[in-house]
Amino acid sequence: MEFLEEKENLVEQITELIVAKKYQTIKETLSELLPPDLAELLHEIQHDVNKEDFLIAFRLLSKELAADVFVEMDSDTQELLIQAFSDKELEEVLQNIFLDDTVDIIEEMPANVVRRIMRQSSPEMRIMINKILKYPDDSAGSVMTIEYVSLRETMTVAEAFARIRKVGIDKETIYNCYVVDSGSKLLGLCTVKNLLLADQNTLISDLMETNVVSVNTLTDKEEAAQTLGKYGFMALPVLDQEERLVGIITYDDAIEVIQDENEEDFLKLAGTSPTDTPYLKTSIWSLFKNRVPWLLILMISATFTGMIISSYETTLAVSITLTACIPMIMGTGGNAGSQASVTIIRSIALGEVEFRDALKVIWKELRVSLLLGITISVACFGKLLLIDKLHTIDNGMLIALVICLTMLATIILAKLVGCILPLLAKVCHLDPAVVANPFITTIVDVLSLLIYCFIAMQLLGGIA
Amino acid sequence: MEFLEEKENLVEQITELIVAKKYQTIKETLSELLPPDLAELLHEIQHDVNKEDFLIAFRLLSKELAADVFVEMDSDTQELLIQAFSDKELEEVLQNIFLDDTVDIIEEMPANVVRRIMRQSSPEMRIMINKILKYPDDSAGSVMTIEYVSLRETMTVAEAFARIRKVGIDKETIYNCYVVDSGSKLLGLCTVKNLLLADQNTLISDLMETNVVSVNTLTDKEEAAQTLGKYGFMALPVLDQEERLVGIITYDDAIEVIQDENEEDFLKLAGTSPTDTPYLKTSIWSLFKNRVPWLLILMISATFTGMIISSYETTLAVSITLTACIPMIMGTGGNAGSQASVTIIRSIALGEVEFRDALKVIWKELRVSLLLGITISVACFGKLLLIDKLHTIDNGMLIALVICLTMLATIILAKLVGCILPLLAKVCHLDPAVVANPFITTIVDVLSLLIYCFIAMQLLGGIA
Repeated sequence: MEFLEEKENLVEQITELIVAKKYQTIKETLSELLPPDLAELLHEIQHDVNKEDFLIAFRLLSKELAADVFVEMDSDTQELLIQAFSDKELEEVLQNIFLDDTVDIIEEMPANVVRRIMRQSSPEMRIMINKILKYPDDSAGSVMTIEYVSLRETMTVAEAFARIRKVGIDKETIYNCYVVDSGSKLLGLCTVKNLLLADQNTLISDLMETNVVSVNTLTDKEEAAQTLGKYGFMALPVLDQEERLVGIITYDDAIEVIQDENEEDFLKLAGTSPTDTPYLKTSIWSLFKNRVPWLLILMISATFTGMIISSYETTLAVSITLTACIPMIMGTGGNAGSQASVTIIRSIALGEVEFRDALKVIWKELRVSLLLGITISVACFGKLLLIDKLHTIDNGMLIALVICLTMLATIILAKLVGCILPLLAKVCHLDPAVVANPFITTIVDVLSLLIYCFIAMQLLGGIA
Repeated sequence: MEFLEEKENLVEQITELIVAKKYQTIKETLSELLPPDLAELLHEIQHDVNKEDFLIAFRLLSKELAADVFVEMDSDTQELLIQAFSDKELEEVLQNIFLDDTVDIIEEMPANVVRRIMRQSSPEMRIMINKILKYPDDSAGSVMTIEYVSLRETMTVAEAFARIRKVGIDKETIYNCYVVDSGSKLLGLCTVKNLLLADQNTLISDLMETNVVSVNTLTDKEEAAQTLGKYGFMALPVLDQEERLVGIITYDDAIEVIQDENEEDFLKLAGTSPTDTPYLKTSIWSLFKNRVPWLLILMISATFTGMIISSYETTLAVSITLTACIPMIMGTGGNAGSQASVTIIRSIALGEVEFRDALKVIWKELRVSLLLGITISVACFGKLLLIDKLHTIDNGMLIALVICLTMLATIILAKLVGCILPLLAKVCHLDPAVVANPFITTIVDVLSLLIYCFIAMQLLGGIA
């Protein structure tokens, strides 16, 4: 928090120091900041001051810090830096970042930059990069890190510590150590806490936990992140199809996956294609592209509501009140539907509800919608008499009845559509969040208007 | 994943074993499961089989496991268990769970159960519980744990390890150790990784990192969780108003906070009051209570749209097409508005956008809405001619012009309202997610109808 308040001052300070060529002072100031803050600071210098000062400041970072800051930057800045790097600088950065971060960067870079990165990587690293790149985008394999500490069953606690001390410095987490056999098959888990609290001569095989929860490289990354969250694990082992340990997902990667997936769901529910760029950095053009399809679909699908209104012209002509209530009925239907759909979509996303619960869900929504429908209809009746004074006009009570019956039916139907569609989407392997909007809105709009006109026709048909 | 597939079988197996009184076998079967899975399994036995079998199964768990499983259960089940516990059983469970979990449980229990819990707690524990209970519901203090490992500057690495070995077993995490002075002032951070990779005689003061990011007990818990996520920390120290270290927030608590807050935002956006019970366990009555206020507000506020339509009766009477297009215009406006509002609400929640960015945001949305407005209007013009054959009716082209101009104006206005209102809510210290719905929908509905009727009046006034 303190950093955010100081950011403006720091930008100014660093820029002045660069002009004064006081490089040692800059180096000391920067070395006191943490990588995510440094990335933000350099981003400000790059955009608000100039590119040269930004490059000078970046090059003043120590090797390790430079690599950590590089990982935190957005892909445009990373590309700019790689273009500016000498081969040696690129090699140094690549040596100091974790392999899963390298893969993340490669996925965002244009082909010529990828070729340069590959050229500066060691042959073993290239093989591993290519392996991770092959996992599908949303799989556990694509977010795992392959840098973990492995132990053998036959080691003692003292030997395990010796191994951790030897290999630990390059590993993303050393606190969960995985016990594997010579064929990389996962045998157990040993935490550093277990090791620290045990006697130095204890055998790992006596200490390790053998009941280890794991996921597969092809498991959905959101499912993997939720598994980690459910058990409160620090890391989750990832096995390949032959049950060999190939990597781990750490808690910080899981937090990122959860946040990203939530963002995507939010944007989908609002009828926007997801993007992973922060709003202020998203271009006008990509905001336009993400939003325009849904607006178009909604507009075109409104042809149906238009057709319904046109064809019931004579019935609606009985009173302007009937027309005047269309927005209220459609609005209530839309809102009632989205209350149900968002609740169900989230329950599916959290693994609380599955397709086999469909009947339970429908039964629950049916009862809730009956309660809601009756309450809202009665309130609506009151409003029509008290505010709109409907009893003073011709056929006023009959019109009020039409409107209230429609409200009741609309709320029940909207809730049922709202809970069934996401479940159907799930069973058809579609994303429940995408069907919610504008699909459900359109269906509920059409249904509620049809009900409205049908009831009006039945009760007021003789008058029209 | 494997557990979920086996759950049904396990329930059956355990129930049969209870009938056969094979308690030792049950004990062994249960001890192989992890606490969250055990909680789920016992929940199934409680609800689908019977309460007695559930209590028998729970009592067969080892003390430590029973405490871990207890923490994972929902509050109804916890209450049932506490009622069934002897004083000794309750004391044992309380001794084996972390203090922050005890506080979470107390917050959900009725007064008589809270009194029993307090009676079974040690006097020191009671003081600490009361202290944590005093922090506001959404503060970092309310989610922190007070069980952390503290070190002194003057210790050597070997002494630090001795201390971790001595106190570590009861601490939620031992991997981040905090260096404090005699007044509990936070001086630095030492990870177990640092300790393991250092020489045994190194002084903690030489090893510790002094630039430690911390939050205050009164910091919003979501902000604290995001700070932890941003830096990828395993734990985040929490200081009181006098800058003394009073607790830490661990990564697993942070994941929970992030998930809970996201759920709340989802439900608020859908016009439902948030609840922390899983959907299938939420009662009909509380679903009703959470949903009815928004539906009522929306219905009542629709009085305005009704009034507008009534008062422009003669203008709308020029052609049924004008009435038939009302749903399309309001739908597009609502959708355009929520695209903007949800994007901005999320950007605010993630700390990407603040009130001081208001002008940037408005300028961005203005340009995007112009692009979108022109595209949709042109497409709408095409639809009106090709699908609705508007050029074949009287004044058709003029009516098409009214509709398309309204679409353009509505999209621009909806986007502006959608981005300004959440920012205003933020600056007024209101929750941006709550104003989004049904507030923005209603305002956009009224505005778009007013524009529609106004433009129709101007262009078609002579005809009506």
